Amino acid sequence: MKRSYRVAQVAKSGTLDIAERETPSPRAGEVLISVEACGICGADAADIDRADPAMRPPRVPGHEVVGRIAALGAGTPSIWKVGQRVGVGRLGGHCNECVQCRRGEFQLCTNQPVVGSSCDGGYAEMMIARATGLVSVPDELSSEEAAPLLCAGMATFNALKKSGAEAGDTVVVQGIGGLGHLAVQYARKMGFRVVAVERGADIADDALRLGAHIYIDASKEDAATRLQGLGGASAIVTTIGDVQAVAALMAALAPQGRLVLLGVAKDPLPVSAGHLVRGERGVLGSMTGTPFQNERTLDFSVLAGVRPCIETMPLERAAEAVARMRSGQAKFRMVLTMTEKSHAHQ
Amino acid sequence: MKRSYRVAQVAKSGTLDIAERETPSPRAGEVLISVEACGICGADAADIDRADPAMRPPRVPGHEVVGRIAALGAGTPSIWKVGQRVGVGRLGGHCNECVQCRRGEFQLCTNQPVVGSSCDGGYAEMMIARATGLVSVPDELSSEEAAPLLCAGMATFNALKKSGAEAGDTVVVQGIGGLGHLAVQYARKMGFRVVAVERGADIADDALRLGAHIYIDASKEDAATRLQGLGGASAIVTTIGDVQAVAALMAALAPQGRLVLLGVAKDPLPVSAGHLVRGERGVLGSMTGTPFQNERTLDFSVLAGVRPCIETMPLERAAEAVARMRSGQAKFRMVLTMTEKSHAHQ
Amino acid sequence: MKRSYRVAQVAKSGTLDIAERETPSPRAGEVLISVEACGICGADAADIDRADPAMRPPRVPGHEVVGRIAALGAGTPSIWKVGQRVGVGRLGGHCNECVQCRRGEFQLCTNQPVVGSSCDGGYAEMMIARATGLVSVPDELSSEEAAPLLCAGMATFNALKKSGAEAGDTVVVQGIGGLGHLAVQYARKMGFRVVAVERGADIADDALRLGAHIYIDASKEDAATRLQGLGGASAIVTTIGDVQAVAALMAALAPQGRLVLLGVAKDPLPVSAGHLVRGERGVLGSMTGTPFQNERTLDFSVLAGVRPCIETMPLERAAEAVARMRSGQAKFRMVLTMTEKSHAHQ
Amino acid sequence: MKRSYRVAQVAKSGTLDIAERETPSPRAGEVLISVEACGICGADAADIDRADPAMRPPRVPGHEVVGRIAALGAGTPSIWKVGQRVGVGRLGGHCNECVQCRRGEFQLCTNQPVVGSSCDGGYAEMMIARATGLVSVPDELSSEEAAPLLCAGMATFNALKKSGAEAGDTVVVQGIGGLGHLAVQYARKMGFRVVAVERGADIADDALRLGAHIYIDASKEDAATRLQGLGGASAIVTTIGDVQAVAALMAALAPQGRLVLLGVAKDPLPVSAGHLVRGERGVLGSMTGTPFQNERTLDFSVLAGVRPCIETMPLERAAEAVARMRSGQAKFRMVLTMTEKSHAHQ
Repeated sequence: MKRSYRVAQVAKSGTLDIAERETPSPRAGEVLISVEACGICGADAADIDRADPAMRPPRVPGHEVVGRIAALGAGTPSIWKVGQRVGVGRLGGHCNECVQCRRGEFQLCTNQPVVGSSCDGGYAEMMIARATGLVSVPDELSSEEAAPLLCAGMATFNALKKSGAEAGDTVVVQGIGGLGHLAVQYARKMGFRVVAVERGADIADDALRLGAHIYIDASKEDAATRLQGLGGASAIVTTIGDVQAVAALMAALAPQGRLVLLGVAKDPLPVSAGHLVRGERGVLGSMTGTPFQNERTLDFSVLAGVRPCIETMPLERAAEAVARMRSGQAKFRMVLTMTEKSHAHQ
Repeated sequence: MKRSYRVAQVAKSGTLDIAERETPSPRAGEVLISVEACGICGADAADIDRADPAMRPPRVPGHEVVGRIAALGAGTPSIWKVGQRVGVGRLGGHCNECVQCRRGEFQLCTNQPVVGSSCDGGYAEMMIARATGLVSVPDELSSEEAAPLLCAGMATFNALKKSGAEAGDTVVVQGIGGLGHLAVQYARKMGFRVVAVERGADIADDALRLGAHIYIDASKEDAATRLQGLGGASAIVTTIGDVQAVAALMAALAPQGRLVLLGVAKDPLPVSAGHLVRGERGVLGSMTGTPFQNERTLDFSVLAGVRPCIETMPLERAAEAVARMRSGQAKFRMVLTMTEKSHAHQ
Repeated sequence: MKRSYRVAQVAKSGTLDIAERETPSPRAGEVLISVEACGICGADAADIDRADPAMRPPRVPGHEVVGRIAALGAGTPSIWKVGQRVGVGRLGGHCNECVQCRRGEFQLCTNQPVVGSSCDGGYAEMMIARATGLVSVPDELSSEEAAPLLCAGMATFNALKKSGAEAGDTVVVQGIGGLGHLAVQYARKMGFRVVAVERGADIADDALRLGAHIYIDASKEDAATRLQGLGGASAIVTTIGDVQAVAALMAALAPQGRLVLLGVAKDPLPVSAGHLVRGERGVLGSMTGTPFQNERTLDFSVLAGVRPCIETMPLERAAEAVARMRSGQAKFRMVLTMTEKSHAHQ
Repeated sequence: MKRSYRVAQVAKSGTLDIAERETPSPRAGEVLISVEACGICGADAADIDRADPAMRPPRVPGHEVVGRIAALGAGTPSIWKVGQRVGVGRLGGHCNECVQCRRGEFQLCTNQPVVGSSCDGGYAEMMIARATGLVSVPDELSSEEAAPLLCAGMATFNALKKSGAEAGDTVVVQGIGGLGHLAVQYARKMGFRVVAVERGADIADDALRLGAHIYIDASKEDAATRLQGLGGASAIVTTIGDVQAVAALMAALAPQGRLVLLGVAKDPLPVSAGHLVRGERGVLGSMTGTPFQNERTLDFSVLAGVRPCIETMPLERAAEAVARMRSGQAKFRMVLTMTEKSHAHQ
C-alpha cells in the first residue's frame, strides 16, 4: 500500500493543484479504492463552484469512479474483496437504518453522502467509500467505459424505465450530451422510437448513429410542433437545465405521456395544469439509483452493447478536462485516468 | 311527451331567463332525457362567463345531470331503456372511433362534446345526450344526491385512485368545497389518513365530520410545514386554482409522493425540479373519467355511504343558485331540481 | 365486385374442398375484405377438428387475415376506406356495449366473434368482418408478413409487455414455433436477456439467429436447473400446451418472476403454492389483444425489424399447409396466399 | 436482568415442558427481548410437528412476538433503545447483503432466519432477535393485540394491497380464521366490497360484524356460482390449504381478477390455463413482508380500528392454546401472555 496518493484539486477559477495526501485506512463499513478512472459529470462544475475555498483540504470532486478495492474496513460484506474492481456513483452509500432504507428505497436514504460534494470523490488516485455504495463492475467494461455509466448511465436508464413508455412508444431525449448520448442508446435498445432533440446540426449524425430514429434541431424548428405532427411523445427524458425549453417541449407530450426530470434546475419549471389534466399527463422526478440498479445498468450496457463516447485525460490534466466539459464540446464524456505511473510514487 | 320544455339561461351578469324550447327528437346514437336534477359545478361559472351573447339560443350550462330517458334515438345500445334513470357528467359521450377510443381511453376521446360548454347541459327540463355518455344511476341514490357525484364525485374518486397512495398513507385534500368535501369522504373510506387543508376555521368541523383525521387552517399556519412534521403526504389532491398555493403545498409531498391536479388553472404551476428529483416526486393530471368509471363512483358511494352535502333550489332559481356557488358559501354543492310542476306544462 | 369467391374447406381428415360462395354484402358495421394472405395458427387445428360436419356451409378457418376492403357496410367509421389494406386477428370485433367494452377492455368483450371458429375466417378469397375488429396494416409489411403478426405476433408481444420484465431482465420463451420464434425476436428488441427453450438441437441456430442469447435444448438438459444457474427468469412466456413441461419450467422463475400463459391447455396446470408464495411469483393469463394493440404490434415490428419466418402456399394447397403446420416442421409459420389469378374468376 | 427465563416446549404429542434457560447476551446486530405476548399461528403446528426430537434444547415456536428490548448487541441502529416495545414476525431479520436485500426486497432475503423454525421464537419469556427484524409497536395497541398483527395481520394486509383490487371492487376472503378474520376487517377498511367464504353457519355473524358485506356458507352453496352471480371477484385472498377448494373458487374470478396465495399447501394447485387466458386472470404468491411493512400494518390497524379477536392464555398453558388453535375453535387467534409473575423469578 502506498503511503500517499495524489488528488487533483480544480478551483472555480480553473487552476489545478495536484496535492499529496496520506493514504487513509478505511473505517468500519468502508473500503479504500485505488482509482483507475473517474468520469466528469456536469454536476462536478457545481461542486467545484460551490466548494468553500477555506476548507482545508479542499473537497475532491468526481462521482463516476471506477477502481480496485485496496483495503477493507471492518464489517464489510463478504461480497467485496481486495483487488475486486468496483464503482461508486453519486450516492455514497446508504445507511440501512433510516425510514427510506427500511422501505428499501436506498436512493432516498437521508443519511447518504453525496460523492464529490459532501465527501471526497474520484479526482484522485485513492478514495474512501462506504461499502453500501459499491457497485460491482463486469469484466466486459474497461474502467474508462464503466465510469460514466455509474452516473450518466444509470440516471438515464432508470429514467427511461420509470417513464412508463412501452416498446414501440415514442420517447424523446432532450439534450444530447454526457447524459443524453447514453439515453439515446438505452432508449433504442429498449425498443422505443427514439427522437433526439438538441440545438445545432453538428450533433445530428452522432445522435442518429447512436440510435436515434429522428433528430430534431431545436435551433431550426419548433421541436414540440414537429413532435405533435409525429403523434406526440409517450415520454420525454430531459437532461437540460433550461426550464423554459423544457416547458416548451412539454407541449409535445401525447395524452398520458410523462416528462421525466433528472436534474436540478435553479428556476421553477412552469407547468400548465390544463395541459396535464386534459391529457392525463405527468411530470416525474427520477433520482439516479441504488448500487443494485447501477449493476443492472452496467449489465444491460454489456448485454445491449451500450458504451459511452469518451475522451480521456490523465489526472494531471483534470483542469483541462473540466474546462472541456464546461465548454460543451466534449463528445460526450470526459474521463480522467490514473496511470500506472501516477500510481507508482510511494 | 311534452312538446316543449323550459331551460334556465343564466347570463354572466347574473340575470336569469327561463326560456321555452321545442322538445327535440334524439338522433341516431342519442337519447332524450327528462331531467330531474342538475348539480352546479365551479366550471359552470366559466361556461356562463365564456358564453357568446350572440349565440341564439344560448348554450344551456350544467354537467351534473340526472334524469330519466324519455326517448331513444336509433341504434342506441339495448342496455338503455325508456324510463330508466341515467346521469350525464362533463364528458358528453365518446366517439368509439378515434385513436383514444380505440385505446379504450374514452375520457381522452378527441371527438367528445363537453356538456354545458360545447353542447347543451342540464339547467333544463329536457336534454339530449349521446348514449355513449350515459351513466346508470343506482336506486339507492336520489337524483339530487347522484348529480354532484357525476362530476365532483368521479373527478375526486378517480384522482385518489390514480394517486398511487395505499391504505394507511397520508393523503391531503387541498380545498374543501364542492369537490373537496367529496374527496375527503372518499379518501377516508379508501383507508387513507386524511388531511383537509382549507383557509378559515368555519369549515373545520365539517371536514372532520366528513372524515378528515386532521384539519389544517391554511390561513393560520403553513400547511406544508405542518404536514412535513406529520411525515409528509403520499398524495395531494388539489381542488383549487390558486397555483401559488398549490406550489407551496407541494413542499409537503413525502418522497415518491404525487400531486394530482384535477382542474385547469390560468397561470402555470411553478414546479421545483430539484424537489421532484431528489424525492422522486411527481405531478399528475387526472381527467374526470368514463361513464363506466362514473358508475363505479356511484356504486362506491352507495357501498361506502358517501353522499354529497347539497343545497337544492328549483330550476326557476338557477341564477340564485349559481350566485351562491360563486360566493363560496354553499355547503357544499348547489343542485337544481326540476319539480313535477315544472314538468307539467305542455 | 366479383359475384362469387372461393373458400378452402379443410376437413379433420385432411381432405380439402375448394367451394364457391356467393359474395355477400357487408351489413351495418361490417366490411367485406378481399383477402390477400392468411396465416395458419395452431388454433386452426382445433377449429378444424371441432367443426361440426353437419354445418352447411362449413365454417371457414383462419384468423391471421390480411386483405383490402372491398366494400363498407353502413355506419362504419370513416377511418376505413375501400381499397385500404387491413388485417383481422382472432378477435372478430368488439361490441362497444358490454361491460368489458365500457371498461375499455375490448379483448374481453363478451359479444365478440372468434374468427375462424364462431364466424368465418380467412382461408378464402373474401371475408366479412366487423369494423371494430379491423387493424390498419403499414405499407412496410407485405400481406404475407403481416398476417402471422396479427395473432402470433400480438399474442407474444403483449405477453412480453404484461410480464413485468424490465430491460436487461432474463426472459424465457418456452416453445420455439409459430409463436415462439416471434416472441424471441420481440424479446430481444425490447432489451431482454433472451433464453429460448425447446426440445431438439435442430432449432438452436434459428433461435440464436432470431435473437436468443442462449438456447436450451430441453431434451438434453433440465431447463429449469440450467436457468436457476443463470440466476433465474424474470419472466417465462410459454407457447406450449404440455402442462407438465410448463410446470417443470416454473421452477426457473426468479423471485417475483411471472409465468405468462398464452394458450388454452386441456389439462390443469399444477402450480406449487409454496413456490409462488416464498418468491412472490405469479402466473398470468394473457389474451391476445385489441385492434389498437395489433396496430402497435405491427408498428413495432416495422420499427424494430421483426418479421415472421414464413412458408407460403396458395389457397389451393390449404390442406397441405395445415398438415405441415400440424407436423411441427414449418419454419415457422405457414401462410396461405390468394393470387391475382385466384381473385380473377367472376 | 434475570439470569434465566422460561420457555414453553410443546411437543407434537401435545405435552408441554416448561424449561428454564440461561439468559443470553445479544451478539452484534441482535437484541434481547423480554417477551410480553406471542400469537399462535397455524404455521406453529407445522413447526412443532417438524421439530427434531433429538435437538437439544428443542426449538421454541412462536413468530408473533411482542415484548420490550432488554439489551442491545453491538452495532444495533440507534432507532432501537432498551425498554422500547417491539415486535418480531415470521421473518427474523434480513442480512442487508444478499441480492434480494440489495434490491430492497428484504422479505425475500436469502439469509433470513425463520422465527420459530430456524431460530427460537416467542413461546418464552425472553428471545434473541436480529435488529433488522424488529418492528416498532405503537402505543395504541396492547401487546396481546399487536402480536397477531405481526404475521396474520401483515400477511393479509399486504396480500390485499398486492391484489390489484381498487376501492369498490369485490374482494373475497376465503377462510375466516386467524388470518381471514383480519383480512375481512382490512378489506372493509380499504373500501372493498367484502365477501367472506367459509364452511358453516356459526361464523356468519362474526364475519358480517367484522365487516363482510356478504357471507357465503360454502357448505350450503357453491361459492363460485354465487359470486359469479354477483359479478365475480376482482380478487380472492385465500387463507386455506385445501387446494381443491381454492381451485374451485377460482372460477369466481372476474376478468383480470387475481387470486392471492398466502400459504404453503402440500399439494399442487390445479389451475385452468384457459380460464386464466380468456379472462386475463392471475395467481400471485404473497410473502408476509418487511419490518417496515409490518409497522405500516400496525399503523393502519390503529388508524382504521382493526383489531384481532383473541383468546389469551398464559405461557404455562401453551399446549392447551396450541391444541385449541389446532381444533379450529379459537375465535380467532390464540395469544400467549407472559405475566409479571412469570417474569419475576430470578
